[in-house]
Amino acid sequence: MSETQPQACDLLIEAGFVVPVEPHGVVLEDHAVAVSDGEIVSVAPVAEARRRFRPARVVARPEGALIPGLVNAHTHNPMTLLRGIADDLPLKVWLQQHIWPIEGAVIGPDFVADGVALAIAEMLRGGTTCCSENYFFPDVQAAVYKRHGFRALVGLPVIDFPTAWAKSDDEYFDRAGEVHDAWHDDGLIATAFAPHAPYTVNDANFERIRLLSDQLDVPVHLHLHETAQEVQQSIEQHGQRPIARLDRLGLIDERLIAVHMTQLTEAEIRLCAERGVSVVHCPESNLKLASGFCPACALERAGVNLALGTDGCASNNDLDMFGETRTAALLAKAVAHDAAALDAFAALRAATLGGARALGFGDRIGSIEPGKQADLACVDLSALETQPLHHVVSQLVYATGRHQVSDVWIAGKPKLQQRELVDMDMAGLVANAKQWRKRIAAIRTS
Amino acid sequence: MSETQPQACDLLIEAGFVVPVEPHGVVLEDHAVAVSDGEIVSVAPVAEARRRFRPARVVARPEGALIPGLVNAHTHNPMTLLRGIADDLPLKVWLQQHIWPIEGAVIGPDFVADGVALAIAEMLRGGTTCCSENYFFPDVQAAVYKRHGFRALVGLPVIDFPTAWAKSDDEYFDRAGEVHDAWHDDGLIATAFAPHAPYTVNDANFERIRLLSDQLDVPVHLHLHETAQEVQQSIEQHGQRPIARLDRLGLIDERLIAVHMTQLTEAEIRLCAERGVSVVHCPESNLKLASGFCPACALERAGVNLALGTDGCASNNDLDMFGETRTAALLAKAVAHDAAALDAFAALRAATLGGARALGFGDRIGSIEPGKQADLACVDLSALETQPLHHVVSQLVYATGRHQVSDVWIAGKPKLQQRELVDMDMAGLVANAKQWRKRIAAIRTS
Repeated sequence: MSETQPQACDLLIEAGFVVPVEPHGVVLEDHAVAVSDGEIVSVAPVAEARRRFRPARVVARPEGALIPGLVNAHTHNPMTLLRGIADDLPLKVWLQQHIWPIEGAVIGPDFVADGVALAIAEMLRGGTTCCSENYFFPDVQAAVYKRHGFRALVGLPVIDFPTAWAKSDDEYFDRAGEVHDAWHDDGLIATAFAPHAPYTVNDANFERIRLLSDQLDVPVHLHLHETAQEVQQSIEQHGQRPIARLDRLGLIDERLIAVHMTQLTEAEIRLCAERGVSVVHCPESNLKLASGFCPACALERAGVNLALGTDGCASNNDLDMFGETRTAALLAKAVAHDAAALDAFAALRAATLGGARALGFGDRIGSIEPGKQADLACVDLSALETQPLHHVVSQLVYATGRHQVSDVWIAGKPKLQQRELVDMDMAGLVANAKQWRKRIAAIRTS
Repeated sequence: MSETQPQACDLLIEAGFVVPVEPHGVVLEDHAVAVSDGEIVSVAPVAEARRRFRPARVVARPEGALIPGLVNAHTHNPMTLLRGIADDLPLKVWLQQHIWPIEGAVIGPDFVADGVALAIAEMLRGGTTCCSENYFFPDVQAAVYKRHGFRALVGLPVIDFPTAWAKSDDEYFDRAGEVHDAWHDDGLIATAFAPHAPYTVNDANFERIRLLSDQLDVPVHLHLHETAQEVQQSIEQHGQRPIARLDRLGLIDERLIAVHMTQLTEAEIRLCAERGVSVVHCPESNLKLASGFCPACALERAGVNLALGTDGCASNNDLDMFGETRTAALLAKAVAHDAAALDAFAALRAATLGGARALGFGDRIGSIEPGKQADLACVDLSALETQPLHHVVSQLVYATGRHQVSDVWIAGKPKLQQRELVDMDMAGLVANAKQWRKRIAAIRTS
């Protein structure tokens, strides 16, 4: 070994700890990750990596833990501009008297572009490198994610009534097709169908989605079994619980990204496991809207692929995947009546590889393995708040704040360096958010 | 007014927003707080305050929200040195195979002093200015809190078996009396009896505590109805639920600081309200140990004084009162099946004035009112993560990270200035924590 010539690489990240996520349950001390052409080429002890590689750039973080970039598997990022606009209200009042009227007045390409840009900055500063987006104007979203080099699965909305995005069923599908075609071979951006929810999409539209998602080979991203009322309403209207109805329509399969899932029978959990459905658990949104408790531990133990999402900022009110992962790990124990439920390693896996698999990106991201894209986050564990460091992954899940994220890379490109955004103008983003506050305040008082 | 001479004061804090907590539900824009001799002397619009006062020092935070310092109403701060040492385990395994053996090997004045110092730094950096401490060696704790100018209610432990602190019932009470006498007229430190729990303290000791707490006029700080097992065991052993047993012993009154309270009947909630019991809700600890759900909203609506605590770092794993307040506000909604439960203002009140009242400090701290001690925290809301700023208190509770705390004062003395600890050596604290990690790792492998 020692006689071979060192191999050139673009970047060598030397970290106090590497948590690869795959294999599961492992913390590698003093390891380095070599990156070339946006891909991870090696994970090895620092001393060995220094012999084997001739990197163009070295980043040394001796007190840092390198983890896969976090995957926010369910969000509505344009709504970041509505953060905290109407809290502590019953769901109906919140939607009908606040969110919908405001959205009605502001929605459009500008609102979507500005909200997504603000969200990207927030996500990067918190170690998130990929998200599954669910909102109107996916064409605008995709362009903004691409411009900032952020990885995203962009949802193509389908809903039974006219909106600013489309006026008819045909228009929803036509526009969906256009956005899919524009991005289907992109390295960072992919698309999914995003029927809003069982109570806002009719059977014919679900059937059309099933056909097209098969044909185009894209996932289906759907709010499902979010509340008891949703289930009850479906029984009244369709004579079936939503999962049974979707099964009849052929949608309960490995393409399905089922979001929320707070109302599940044991049979439904088994069905999801058998069919390879991914469940996106959004614990903070479920708590805040009093929707119910997703049985995260039971799902995980049944073999269901579990992912985590923050939901939108109007119902959370942040895009903090560290906070969401902590809440998921804590809540799972209380819901399962078992302090060993969803342990720190399992929670971190849900926030990374689980999300990647849900989005159909499992072969590309979600773990630190050679051949995968270098979507990485480095967390500074030297802070007083994560000392003493008895257990790296416990500290990451139960004690770390997102502001401890020091560096972020997407496909090997630096996006955050020592807490500084590399290619975004933070002051400009904040100034723009303040403009939106004024504009929305004017709408509300008019 | 304009002709009167300006009045001298020590400090004028000008803030973009002042959230006084009392009166409830109020946000004062562009207000200033004047401080003299450690006390708040005025809360007034900035322009008016500039006319009325001639301050020795001015601190201007135009994008900051000034709130009362947070009160952590239940913690075991020496255990900060055990942060993350054993997570994701059933309670019995956690205590018997991990926490107790490690404590047995390390407990003593050094461990207590070093753990408390680390905790004080963490609390200050997170906007907490007062805590209710519950651990052994209260003499050491009190001295460390006093040295660092931190406000604390120090628990005087009573437990039915010998520990490093005391070997017999009499020794527990003798030492309690000594610590109480040493601190009973201090401006920052006060004491409370801290019987460990109903299942570890016998009737005779509870009776002695009742007599002495009346005589000395000090609160009683007690883990109570933490788990269903505790309640069941009490029924088997005493023929009564713990609250009923304590009522028989005369302890259900306004002196009682009842911690956890996850198992409550409606009659017990009413009893607590009638008797003026304060309940300390520790949501993250309850979730992590799968103890159950405290009915925080029902307690608050019944008129019970609600406080919040982080519990110790071995079961949380941080002293983050911003995180705890957010979790309390979120969880209360799911538990009450009501998205309007424990709103942001109510949650912030529990984290400040509720805690102050529970500890018997309600006339001194917990709100920003003239005559109260100047225990204050300023939160920088200009960060991207709290923009746009549609609602100050929603942002504080649902979106703010504790690292956004810019400044902290206790009794008017600056403790944190622009994120820097004023009189603590952070590097030294971290280095010391690392030494403890090594020492504890050596114990575990020996």
